[in-house]
Amino acid sequence: MDTRTYDIEGFAEQLVEHGLIVPTGIKGAYGRGPVFEDILQRFDALVKRIAADDGAQELTFPPVLARAMIEKVGYMDNFPQLAGSVHSFMGTDKQARELSAKVHAGERWEDMLSPTDVMLTPAACYPVYPTFSGLLPQGGRLVTVLGWVFRHEPSDEPTRLQHFRMREYIRVGKPEDVVAWRDAWLQRGLTLLEGLGLPVQSDVASDPFFGRAGKMMAANQVDQRLKFEILCPVISREKPTAICSFNWHQDHFSSKFGIRTSEDAVAHTACLGFGLERVTLALIKAHGYDVADWPAKVRDQLWPR
Amino acid sequence: MDTRTYDIEGFAEQLVEHGLIVPTGIKGAYGRGPVFEDILQRFDALVKRIAADDGAQELTFPPVLARAMIEKVGYMDNFPQLAGSVHSFMGTDKQARELSAKVHAGERWEDMLSPTDVMLTPAACYPVYPTFSGLLPQGGRLVTVLGWVFRHEPSDEPTRLQHFRMREYIRVGKPEDVVAWRDAWLQRGLTLLEGLGLPVQSDVASDPFFGRAGKMMAANQVDQRLKFEILCPVISREKPTAICSFNWHQDHFSSKFGIRTSEDAVAHTACLGFGLERVTLALIKAHGYDVADWPAKVRDQLWPR
Repeated sequence: MDTRTYDIEGFAEQLVEHGLIVPTGIKGAYGRGPVFEDILQRFDALVKRIAADDGAQELTFPPVLARAMIEKVGYMDNFPQLAGSVHSFMGTDKQARELSAKVHAGERWEDMLSPTDVMLTPAACYPVYPTFSGLLPQGGRLVTVLGWVFRHEPSDEPTRLQHFRMREYIRVGKPEDVVAWRDAWLQRGLTLLEGLGLPVQSDVASDPFFGRAGKMMAANQVDQRLKFEILCPVISREKPTAICSFNWHQDHFSSKFGIRTSEDAVAHTACLGFGLERVTLALIKAHGYDVADWPAKVRDQLWPR
Repeated sequence: MDTRTYDIEGFAEQLVEHGLIVPTGIKGAYGRGPVFEDILQRFDALVKRIAADDGAQELTFPPVLARAMIEKVGYMDNFPQLAGSVHSFMGTDKQARELSAKVHAGERWEDMLSPTDVMLTPAACYPVYPTFSGLLPQGGRLVTVLGWVFRHEPSDEPTRLQHFRMREYIRVGKPEDVVAWRDAWLQRGLTLLEGLGLPVQSDVASDPFFGRAGKMMAANQVDQRLKFEILCPVISREKPTAICSFNWHQDHFSSKFGIRTSEDAVAHTACLGFGLERVTLALIKAHGYDVADWPAKVRDQLWPR
């Protein structure tokens, strides 16, 4: 039985007091202290060690991606409330003086900006799909990325960040191979996180689709068992936090980017992602604010000799 | 004498052909292949090894920071053309359907968004200054960050990115301590980069201040020798690329954030930053597209046994 107490404000205060996070004055965008970041990097290294034999190709993308891509995958239809659009000033010298005057007068000045070609990446796997276009090699492909993800949902909950990192694995290939890979990783993820002393469980889940139409899409997603999450109590016992998620997209991305199996049939994609800040917070909640006091079993895995 | 040939288009093509970078369809926001990223991480680790005894505190910030901070430090006065402002949809169900319809009709839809509380971080050191507020400990402070930096200047030059990483060191303390630290790191940076076989030189420099007024500010910055850069030919012999820069801000940030020395006098700040993608590209240009062929002296430093 879980006898710990949960208190969002107290948790955030303790994280600050122990130098684990550094307030910046914006909700969901705190700085990470040296110990917090070390835990995060060590967990990421552990995931990579466990998956070392999988032969994933590692790609790295910046935290922005093409606006045209966001449009193409339907993100503005489904999650407009979470998107981050990047706008810049493209005016003249005279307009720049006007902009500057507005800033100093405390007036709003954003209407003097224009949209750029980029938006903030809303899922670390998005930039990967276009690289799969065409006929896949036999057996499909596997890519891994570590990327910054933006979601506009400012919150005081330390686990709900506007900008955070995901370690993702993205699999593309025959439908049955992709589903088998997803199932195997769901078990692997549970074993990994349980092995780190986290009280985790998996469950069917749905994405935060916007509005009334979104409710139906979410229900459909649950019915089809397209999304699973690994949950762990971090800020609440009743509403555990998703620290790892598994998405089977069927042919959503492969149809949009012309991805075909080696036999020229419809390819499927699936991805899984560890929310690195959330895993870090789950470990801190489970084992305490001072890593020196963590169980040897956990320390030995994160800081191997 | 430098007998190499420089050809921007040819360089970009070769980088793609060797899997070092992955095109994404947007200028200045390509993906980094596994070898490119390994070189970058190894160089960053080398910098940290060299500076290990300096006692810098490592902080990590997300790629966004408070809009109020951008306004406060005068960024919109000086570099409005480079800024990236983050806008989101905050409307109703009905407005979301209208937005979606515009996207599908190929119409512009960004006027349905509102500015958020955040902008993209335009310099990795910015989020650090507010953490220095108040009276400093004796001897001042030293912080290091690895951060993503956004500059809206789309370009086909592989060295001119919209989003890139800087490894920065930020020093705050008495004016004479800060200048001495800057001078010592300028020599240290040159020694490090020369030791990696890069044909570098340092020079006084200026920031890309916007417009006519900006020309005067840049001239003033050069006169006062506030900015230095370490330059290396990467895409042109005549216009070498800045791969490391040193900025002495005098009391620009300390006056804005109320930073005082332990004796309650005016504190100064200075920072230095390695442009990690640019150093990586300089190494590739200097030693070739296949790291296996790089000189042993360089390999042994980046990949120590």
